[in-house]
Amino acid sequence: MLKIPHNQVAGHQAGGGKLGPLVDDAGHFYKPLQGDERGSAEVSFYTTFSLDTRIPDHIRKFFPVFYGTQLVEASDGSGLKPHLVLQDLTLGRVNPSIMDIKIGSRTWAPQASEDYIEKCLKKDRETSSLLLGFRLSGLQFHSGNEFGFWKSARKSVQGLSAEEIKLVLRNFVSSNTYRELESKPDCAFASVIFGGPNGILSQLLELKTWFEDQTIYHFYSCSVHVMFEKQLALEGKSPGAEIKLIDFAHVVEGRGVIDHNFLGGISSLIKFISDILTTNDGCPTRCSLKDAQKNEGFSDNRTN
Amino acid sequence: MLKIPHNQVAGHQAGGGKLGPLVDDAGHFYKPLQGDERGSAEVSFYTTFSLDTRIPDHIRKFFPVFYGTQLVEASDGSGLKPHLVLQDLTLGRVNPSIMDIKIGSRTWAPQASEDYIEKCLKKDRETSSLLLGFRLSGLQFHSGNEFGFWKSARKSVQGLSAEEIKLVLRNFVSSNTYRELESKPDCAFASVIFGGPNGILSQLLELKTWFEDQTIYHFYSCSVHVMFEKQLALEGKSPGAEIKLIDFAHVVEGRGVIDHNFLGGISSLIKFISDILTTNDGCPTRCSLKDAQKNEGFSDNRTN
Repeated sequence: MLKIPHNQVAGHQAGGGKLGPLVDDAGHFYKPLQGDERGSAEVSFYTTFSLDTRIPDHIRKFFPVFYGTQLVEASDGSGLKPHLVLQDLTLGRVNPSIMDIKIGSRTWAPQASEDYIEKCLKKDRETSSLLLGFRLSGLQFHSGNEFGFWKSARKSVQGLSAEEIKLVLRNFVSSNTYRELESKPDCAFASVIFGGPNGILSQLLELKTWFEDQTIYHFYSCSVHVMFEKQLALEGKSPGAEIKLIDFAHVVEGRGVIDHNFLGGISSLIKFISDILTTNDGCPTRCSLKDAQKNEGFSDNRTN
Repeated sequence: MLKIPHNQVAGHQAGGGKLGPLVDDAGHFYKPLQGDERGSAEVSFYTTFSLDTRIPDHIRKFFPVFYGTQLVEASDGSGLKPHLVLQDLTLGRVNPSIMDIKIGSRTWAPQASEDYIEKCLKKDRETSSLLLGFRLSGLQFHSGNEFGFWKSARKSVQGLSAEEIKLVLRNFVSSNTYRELESKPDCAFASVIFGGPNGILSQLLELKTWFEDQTIYHFYSCSVHVMFEKQLALEGKSPGAEIKLIDFAHVVEGRGVIDHNFLGGISSLIKFISDILTTNDGCPTRCSLKDAQKNEGFSDNRTN
């Protein structure tokens, strides 16, 4: 009994007869293999990684569990197609707020084809990747159970400026009810979502420490998937703030060198989040109307 | 009384009627302004930086002191030309061993011209920059006072592989006498040059910590200049291990974002140096003939 997931914010999406991932009730996420070499590359990564004894448990927890591949009925009605079977990251979550953030100023591996490099370089320059070391690729901000959520169009968030990214990150951890991004987010939950020993910042720092040392894999075009439950935060309960790495179609061997591209990008993201926690109790005063006016690129894709 | 410096390992070099930097006996280094916008960009950086109160002293010490600009007789006999007047980094050193390392997998700023980006990207891909996050741009390895030194041709060290870079870094801190790079360097001075509270690794880590936080400048195509005195190490004295940043013709404003490109590159270099200190007492056993055979790209530019 496969169905279309509610909580996917980036990548190809099923629905309306399109090909996209599916989920079941047992906690599995079925991701259709991309038809070209990317599909086999991602299978190859998950297979190798799942058997790689060099990965410590405190790092492995940041990766979705891999259950193999399986032929299942594709969401576009095109019949049985091979799918990656992965852990459904949103299992047990009711209304998760989500950000997908593609890490690295460069999304292409040195050994990629000239055509692919040219395409990626163009996009890295057009989006925020080159300037910021990462780009947002999907957002879903819940206002709590009663008020539904605000979801961004991917194109509208990929090219945000540093100031706009700050505003998005502040909105992510605010108690405000969203019809659109708030120009004056209260950052009420910054300390419980970004901060603390189990918060997002702490998890990102743990990952960063590993990237300062590991020379096994280079993760091009890989994303950090950030989640928490707004409703739990509103009720004063632990909001389940969690990061996972996703999208491994462009992972290559490290060959004795650290992944300086990923490390630079995640360090840049860490600086943004760290600043929110340290500046003026989480909510800088300059988070003002001026910021909001820059915010024309956003679209309100509210769906319920 | 200006003269040609003995210890310059990278960049344009005076001598034989060419235009290059000069030094005086009072500790000044005269660098001719590059004719195009790079010259004025470097003057502009030094001028701004020298007045920038946001730079803490423990970071400012990594930069050459700036004394202004001055018209002096150019080394190529072309008459009075404007020069940057900087601290002579080798003042007081007799026979410094030197490595110049250009930091960053990308040597071009996002706002550079298309022609310049294309040129740099090509070079970053041809050299080790893209893969390793840095490239060697000059080496001068002293064997101690009696034996002269070994100096590399720039072109021969820019494209080294990870294994070759490891071999160079091990040679840098070894007691071996060089006619060429040793295939079995003893790494005798690794702990006093790379290690310790005042060693190269410690200095690089201090710089890295600043780069994790500073959003003032982005340092494209900037180099770390690493020095020590081999003769002092041989005599069991403190070898004066020191790093400086040099070459600021492509520095741009940070605009609220960390320099993730420089940070990634310096972190990669740190990993290489750190591995030499932690692997098998500084000299890994695999530093063998096999490594040496890969070493055909080197040329022996021994000059005395």
